[in-house]
Amino acid sequence: MDIAPTADRPSLPTTRADCLALDAADPLAPLRARFDLPEGVIYLDGNSLGARPRSALARAQDVVAREWGRDLIRSWNDAGWFELPKRLGDRLAPLIGAHAGEVVVTDTTSLNLFKALAAALAIQEERAPARKTIVTERANFPTDIYMADGLARWLDRGYGVRLVDTPEELEAAVDADCAVLMLTHVNYRDGRQHDMAALTAHAHANGALTVWDLAHSAGAVPIDLHGAGADFAVGCTYKYLNGGPGAPAFIWVPQRHQAAFSHPLTGWWSHAAPFAMAHGFAAADGIGRALCGTQPVVSLALVECGLDVFDATDMTALREKSLALTDLFIGLVERRCAGHRLTLVTPREHARRGSHVSFTHPHGYAVMAALIGRGVIGDYREPDIMRFGFTPLYTGFTDVWDAVETLRDILDGEGYDIHAARAAVT
Amino acid sequence: MDIAPTADRPSLPTTRADCLALDAADPLAPLRARFDLPEGVIYLDGNSLGARPRSALARAQDVVAREWGRDLIRSWNDAGWFELPKRLGDRLAPLIGAHAGEVVVTDTTSLNLFKALAAALAIQEERAPARKTIVTERANFPTDIYMADGLARWLDRGYGVRLVDTPEELEAAVDADCAVLMLTHVNYRDGRQHDMAALTAHAHANGALTVWDLAHSAGAVPIDLHGAGADFAVGCTYKYLNGGPGAPAFIWVPQRHQAAFSHPLTGWWSHAAPFAMAHGFAAADGIGRALCGTQPVVSLALVECGLDVFDATDMTALREKSLALTDLFIGLVERRCAGHRLTLVTPREHARRGSHVSFTHPHGYAVMAALIGRGVIGDYREPDIMRFGFTPLYTGFTDVWDAVETLRDILDGEGYDIHAARAAVT
Repeated sequence: MDIAPTADRPSLPTTRADCLALDAADPLAPLRARFDLPEGVIYLDGNSLGARPRSALARAQDVVAREWGRDLIRSWNDAGWFELPKRLGDRLAPLIGAHAGEVVVTDTTSLNLFKALAAALAIQEERAPARKTIVTERANFPTDIYMADGLARWLDRGYGVRLVDTPEELEAAVDADCAVLMLTHVNYRDGRQHDMAALTAHAHANGALTVWDLAHSAGAVPIDLHGAGADFAVGCTYKYLNGGPGAPAFIWVPQRHQAAFSHPLTGWWSHAAPFAMAHGFAAADGIGRALCGTQPVVSLALVECGLDVFDATDMTALREKSLALTDLFIGLVERRCAGHRLTLVTPREHARRGSHVSFTHPHGYAVMAALIGRGVIGDYREPDIMRFGFTPLYTGFTDVWDAVETLRDILDGEGYDIHAARAAVT
Repeated sequence: MDIAPTADRPSLPTTRADCLALDAADPLAPLRARFDLPEGVIYLDGNSLGARPRSALARAQDVVAREWGRDLIRSWNDAGWFELPKRLGDRLAPLIGAHAGEVVVTDTTSLNLFKALAAALAIQEERAPARKTIVTERANFPTDIYMADGLARWLDRGYGVRLVDTPEELEAAVDADCAVLMLTHVNYRDGRQHDMAALTAHAHANGALTVWDLAHSAGAVPIDLHGAGADFAVGCTYKYLNGGPGAPAFIWVPQRHQAAFSHPLTGWWSHAAPFAMAHGFAAADGIGRALCGTQPVVSLALVECGLDVFDATDMTALREKSLALTDLFIGLVERRCAGHRLTLVTPREHARRGSHVSFTHPHGYAVMAALIGRGVIGDYREPDIMRFGFTPLYTGFTDVWDAVETLRDILDGEGYDIHAARAAVT
């Protein structure tokens, strides 16, 4: 698509009609019809909660009325409930460069990260027992740091988390103490994307394992876990994968690490024979050992509706449109909202960008509240970041134009309340 | 209700008409209309997966179509998604003798048990560091033992799990090494109920803390956690609480233990200010610290439909009917299926019985498969146990009669396939 990578490129659309023309020519535009989006809303928060696939309503009705209500306990077998974490994992695998039998959809990203970190530390304890540090960025999503801290503190045998302040310090931090390099692929605040292959290669060359959090990149950017040689990965299904609010997360354990994969959360679903009700624990072969307890079937089943949509396209096409959308947004904001104290914090370089764009503004919370009040839904992250997520499956070029015009109007007219109280969830 | 506690009492109903009369006089009988139960099925497996409250279908539609589809990200605040674990916990609390602000509905029973055990061990590490043993029964539900084992092994500083073979050995096992007595209140296989108050008092007198798993008792028998002086409890919402397949579990932390409650699964939902995105972890005050990551909203929301039904009755009335149903079942099976190698393994004594009844049979799996084939749905647990759950909310006396007659017919005619292959989930 003919969208400029920077604001000063002449090909940047200059009118709403230009954007309408881009939408008319967009081969992905028909996918929007597969989502239920409310009238009068431009939804730029799919990086936080993906929109609802239309099929999810019928699927929810079927799971509740037929599978639960009519078939009752038999659905554990007949409706495939018990196999659902693995079956959905197999469907998700191609989107992240994983193989079948390497992914399960289960639990939460936080818990899956805990399992992956525990397993990585255990492998290192065998290989290189002096390595005691989990290296990550201070700018990582906080729960990742909290979970790593929780694990390290409770193990209480010399493990610790080392936070680095800039991406440039990461390589040096992978030193002789480093057991695991734990990174989020695309940063939740500024949308910066790491070079997974390069950092993984660097970690391996220096004796560390890697754990990647794909929360803000799965379904948003092409990912090739095997190509990058990554060790473990976790991620979220309710953002760009459109699996539904709080839908269970995923964990990837490549076949080469499965035999050594161990963690403390050894519930019965990770047992080799859960219904034998054996007294001793014996881990399942394969990816099953990343499971723990009984999964929330209704929420889990809806994940499939999100994955179904990806069958109609591929990550290359999605990435092309995603970059066109974020280029357009950056370009239009910088041109049409110039002088309004907006500062881009997302990288301009394509290879370093995810699928959301963040600008700071001194009154970021108030401006975002005003945008939401006018139907342009992004979100806000402390202390001053406005985030705008672009989901090529259901966001069009005219949406971008209209969102920027609304932003411009709010800023031009100072139509925001700088004393707006924070809601519980921002 | 005038049901005999043993088979030889003359008041045991002797005809189907007697049972119809009991149903006609049953004040709880109208509650059955609040559940969607398929025609032609006698559902005696509510101890494994509760039936569907009729309201759950409309609730699922509303959460999916309106809260997710229309209101999107705003529902975290406007639909109360973020507060749901606490709000549902407050609603569940009265059913287990807990107070508001002491229960959250979240994660799985296995994970909540892990948190409770970790917290109990940490408290004991301060109070009585020599105590290193988690005492439980070999007959406990396996995942409880696996989780305790996983925690003890990974802590790797002298902790261990001690399994006792009979309930009679429990008291002696609470010795100077015992940090925590971890018990399931009603046993999943034989339906035996522990005396929570007596065992808790014994544990406390001997320096141990107690962790109770209420999976098979919450909503099934009256529970008074505060009255019993219990320390921690976890349990399941998808059995007698009818919350939906795999619905999130609950954890109870009494106010007196909340300040000291700590565990390794410190995800952002357990943070004092999750959306401040602070780099350092600071546990929430109160029960919020038992949370971890983002919850599966659709499954979670349906838990409320199950809890709503309990507003129409109370645990005393439910217990009275439950005992009448299980008395009737035991009596009729022993009278009408005599000579068929069925052995009752559930206590006859009311105080020691939950709300399900188990009989062994040398071909238990095959007989249960035949029962299910004829619409009488119980379940099977290795090696030879047939379980029959009685949910007073939707099971009637005539259901019991008809179930026993079907069992008798199968046994009389040897209408079962002793070579029936096991399904994945039993």
